Amino acid sequence: MVSRFVFGNPIKTNAVIKETALSDISAVNPLLKFSEDKRSFTIDLLPDDSIYGLGESLHGMNKRGFIYVSNNTDQVHHDENQYSLYGSHNFVLLNRFKGVKLGLFVDYPAKTTFDIGFTDKDVMKVSVEEPDYTLYVVEGDSALSIITEFREIIGKSYKAPLWGFGYGQSRWGYKCTEDILKVVNEHKRLNLPLDSVYMDIDYMQDYAVFTINPERYHYFEDFVKKMKEENIHLVPAIDPAVKRLKGYFVYDEGVENNYFCKDEDGNDFPVAVWPGLAHLPDFFKPEVKKWFGEKYKLFTDVGIDGFWNDMNEPAIFYSSKSIKAAADKLATLRDKTETLNLSELWDYLDTASGLANNAEDYKSFYHEIDGKKVRHDRVHNLYAFNMVEGISKEFKEIAPDKEILFFSRSSYVGQHRYSGIWTGDNSSYYSHIKLILSQLPGLNMNGFLYVGADTGGFAFNVSEPLLMRFMQVSMFTPLFRNHCALGCRDQEIYNFKDIDSFRNMLNLRYALIPELYRIYEDCIENSKLMFTPLALAYPDDRACLDVDDQLMLGDDYMIAPVYEANATGRFVYLPEDMTAYVLKSDKDYKTLDMEKGYHHIDIALNELVIFVKKGKELKLSEPALNTALL
Amino acid sequence: MVSRFVFGNPIKTNAVIKETALSDISAVNPLLKFSEDKRSFTIDLLPDDSIYGLGESLHGMNKRGFIYVSNNTDQVHHDENQYSLYGSHNFVLLNRFKGVKLGLFVDYPAKTTFDIGFTDKDVMKVSVEEPDYTLYVVEGDSALSIITEFREIIGKSYKAPLWGFGYGQSRWGYKCTEDILKVVNEHKRLNLPLDSVYMDIDYMQDYAVFTINPERYHYFEDFVKKMKEENIHLVPAIDPAVKRLKGYFVYDEGVENNYFCKDEDGNDFPVAVWPGLAHLPDFFKPEVKKWFGEKYKLFTDVGIDGFWNDMNEPAIFYSSKSIKAAADKLATLRDKTETLNLSELWDYLDTASGLANNAEDYKSFYHEIDGKKVRHDRVHNLYAFNMVEGISKEFKEIAPDKEILFFSRSSYVGQHRYSGIWTGDNSSYYSHIKLILSQLPGLNMNGFLYVGADTGGFAFNVSEPLLMRFMQVSMFTPLFRNHCALGCRDQEIYNFKDIDSFRNMLNLRYALIPELYRIYEDCIENSKLMFTPLALAYPDDRACLDVDDQLMLGDDYMIAPVYEANATGRFVYLPEDMTAYVLKSDKDYKTLDMEKGYHHIDIALNELVIFVKKGKELKLSEPALNTALL
Repeated sequence: MVSRFVFGNPIKTNAVIKETALSDISAVNPLLKFSEDKRSFTIDLLPDDSIYGLGESLHGMNKRGFIYVSNNTDQVHHDENQYSLYGSHNFVLLNRFKGVKLGLFVDYPAKTTFDIGFTDKDVMKVSVEEPDYTLYVVEGDSALSIITEFREIIGKSYKAPLWGFGYGQSRWGYKCTEDILKVVNEHKRLNLPLDSVYMDIDYMQDYAVFTINPERYHYFEDFVKKMKEENIHLVPAIDPAVKRLKGYFVYDEGVENNYFCKDEDGNDFPVAVWPGLAHLPDFFKPEVKKWFGEKYKLFTDVGIDGFWNDMNEPAIFYSSKSIKAAADKLATLRDKTETLNLSELWDYLDTASGLANNAEDYKSFYHEIDGKKVRHDRVHNLYAFNMVEGISKEFKEIAPDKEILFFSRSSYVGQHRYSGIWTGDNSSYYSHIKLILSQLPGLNMNGFLYVGADTGGFAFNVSEPLLMRFMQVSMFTPLFRNHCALGCRDQEIYNFKDIDSFRNMLNLRYALIPELYRIYEDCIENSKLMFTPLALAYPDDRACLDVDDQLMLGDDYMIAPVYEANATGRFVYLPEDMTAYVLKSDKDYKTLDMEKGYHHIDIALNELVIFVKKGKELKLSEPALNTALL
Repeated sequence: MVSRFVFGNPIKTNAVIKETALSDISAVNPLLKFSEDKRSFTIDLLPDDSIYGLGESLHGMNKRGFIYVSNNTDQVHHDENQYSLYGSHNFVLLNRFKGVKLGLFVDYPAKTTFDIGFTDKDVMKVSVEEPDYTLYVVEGDSALSIITEFREIIGKSYKAPLWGFGYGQSRWGYKCTEDILKVVNEHKRLNLPLDSVYMDIDYMQDYAVFTINPERYHYFEDFVKKMKEENIHLVPAIDPAVKRLKGYFVYDEGVENNYFCKDEDGNDFPVAVWPGLAHLPDFFKPEVKKWFGEKYKLFTDVGIDGFWNDMNEPAIFYSSKSIKAAADKLATLRDKTETLNLSELWDYLDTASGLANNAEDYKSFYHEIDGKKVRHDRVHNLYAFNMVEGISKEFKEIAPDKEILFFSRSSYVGQHRYSGIWTGDNSSYYSHIKLILSQLPGLNMNGFLYVGADTGGFAFNVSEPLLMRFMQVSMFTPLFRNHCALGCRDQEIYNFKDIDSFRNMLNLRYALIPELYRIYEDCIENSKLMFTPLALAYPDDRACLDVDDQLMLGDDYMIAPVYEANATGRFVYLPEDMTAYVLKSDKDYKTLDMEKGYHHIDIALNELVIFVKKGKELKLSEPALNTALL
């Protein structure tokens, strides 16, 4: 049962699309205690209460013990001290062991804080900036039925084409068609399956959106066609900010039609991103959505059928306003080098390091929503949603016959109807293998089914075993993309030694794709989780409450990846009797019948384990070098 | 058997004090393959080879899979992408399963890189900056005998007084005697054991070393005496850099006697640390060691008998030279705010963020060693060693009857004869509970027995359960100090809710102290490890190779702390039959007889587990509120 409570005058988000009856606050579940101004509410937690949800967020699957702030942020440091990542996924589930289950969705497009047993270990406190929000409370018999009911009110998830499940290779730094050809040819030479190569910002002319560098990507249409003949999809990155350059068609059209976000005085607000100073399209205006979406035709017309929208929090390196203030401030350092005290020093350092994604900048520009001027920070978490929604609707116009692969970095609930997401700029850390595992169920609860992490890690250098273990988790996620940053060690498989084992893992992925895609479609159709915490799948089993690094996959499988350096096995808890498939490849594997309970299982670096419920079997198809050949 | 190989003209470090015969490189163990210029050597690794050692370093106990750089660094971010921490502990042990064991000590006081199966997963490569170093190769029948032999050549470890095993409370930010009194009184009021309170930089007058702020720490001698009557030891922080201020006695003496490090032209080199611009004592000169050490008399004479030496990498916030260059550079930003490209932007940001601990600064000043001018970076890792050695020797002169508690942040092998260390500025992260566990055996191998981490974490905010789990590891380390940074959440126990459980844990610590101290003394006397990886204690048991989060403690015990958020138990591997003591307190515990093999064991948040070998028993004494009452 869904109850809807409205506080103040919320801005319409379109997260929820199914009509739900308005309830009176007097009827709210008595576990929720509201502050007088309704800006926050608390729930007292019992020792065995666990909390799930919050999608793309840090820490474990069970979110208890930490603070989370929904505030879409270009945050490359996914460390334990961070509060915000790229998306805002405000559905949480209270899972009381052998007790009440409660779903809560705080539909609020600005900063939302979830203090889940951090400040007080026995209290969860949720608060918003201004008491203008809609709260959905979902009650039901079981955690899974509550999740399904929530998913039904937010609408069906975006469905990616099958090739979106193929292996993709990406890198910030592929500078020209030759770089891409090398990726394709090396995979071919080594018989490594591949479906897509991603084009990061380097393909553009001076980072101007909807341009292609004509020298480095010459004969682009022919190149796309040639790649298609080899069943390789090219997937360009698209950023929202439009380079400030007279004569550049996107800029000129934007200025002429008032498509850009304005400062307080109504002037186009300049922010710097990759192209230097640029303007942000005001995606809250319907005509801007349409205009920007139509531009994708430049790509779809030459055969492109996949896109990733990057930097759409929106990320801001600095604004004209903030860099001028910083420059003035920093210029005064010259008079103080001999007398500087520490607080002055830190102030100077903060002036520089605080330029990017500065809260003041987000308070300095405005959107037009239904004819009204709204300051950006009030609707910050909806920026990407509006961008993606607009483009997705345009796809039906500009490429009606195409199934488009489409995913975004930033997101808000509701956006799952239009695109997938990837989990942003992670690092080549073992802990980030575990991180994606922890994020999967929360993402699914919040509607995002087409998801995946940068395999191998985006920032910093990868090692061969780390890449291998990372692949063994991405193995199961719909998006499986190896991506890394400029300046990092080459991360394509062919740069490493044990190519046979990498090939085996990719073959396994392709052998699994038909079954994974079947599960994926089922979870879209029936509003189910693709990845389910054991504690929700086996609610009466106390042991499952502690299991934070295993997941049920679909109805029949359980995954338990290895994510520790040098480990040649791991501990698992089996909530029922299962068969472990320990696979070197889709052909070379052994099975072990294992009883409900605690176990240690050997899993060498070149092995993957999948657990299958008694009476079910692991469905492996014949692999292929490409999903088109499956 | 120890073989010593000398390359080029090494600078004498005094790490090794036992004479060892010089060997010819032709006789070196054939596993080592040297580059032509001898600047590096490699060892081919087999799949089951594990590597231990490197003391204060990141990642797991088994160091394989990562790069480590010995380069003493004030590094608050102990993240997976870092290479260097505060100490340089260049002893590593190759542990080939059922094969050769080999100890290697690279005695070299500048940057030393250990690429242990990172670049090539099957190769360990060790390299130095210049081919002037001494390599000790220790061969023997077992890993533990090799470690003992190495420890014997580097000399006996510093022994801390018993009260150094008591609980200590610290915080950057105790501004006055009242703040310290509050700590003591709150612990007393709640019956929480306490032996020491640490005085961080705030006790000084304008951060000038060897001064005490007379207003905020008035009647200091009386205060020390009063605290002593309550069996509370006050432990001040001492930093090396001397404030540049005419009329300040330490500065005047230093200038007059040429005690400070010089720039290329022979002028005192100004660097900024806490007191603003300051000079670094040249601890490589014997007279400077003596002079600086004698200054501690100002404290010992008023009853102080414990010190921690901080910032002695040495940490440098900036130099006069570097801040002027940075200020000039940053001043040019004003002309570019409209035209900035990204590489220029990053250059500006790096200019600011790169000020601290800048490699160029470390190349800009000089020491005098045996009458010769030596550039700092050539001997960087010895700076703290020389500081600590000098002070330690002076303690015998200025306080001959006192047992002094003495530990340092920065260190090099050999320094273990004079002081303990703490592991520097960690964070309130669950992963940093595991980090200290991983560091303990490597620290012990490199001679450091009096060690511990900032309990609860230095940087960022702690939660109550995190502090509890952190205490359950510090429970076993000689140094047990709750310490945190200015601006972070109050971290003293009395700020939390479940005081009873915290008290139980502290009582347990005090009940364990006699046995821990006995083990500690035994390990000093017999050059043993206090904390031993299972893989070294049970070399024929393949399962132990994977155990990276349990340690043997002394001869009879095994520890296996819980370090995951929300966990109410954990998996363990028992290398032999053992009894598990699951302790709520020293009085309230249960025992479980468990067989060799894999297990899961329940350990609630307020419980500690200690495993005891069959036939042995856990030796718990009667706890007390203070070690003086034990």
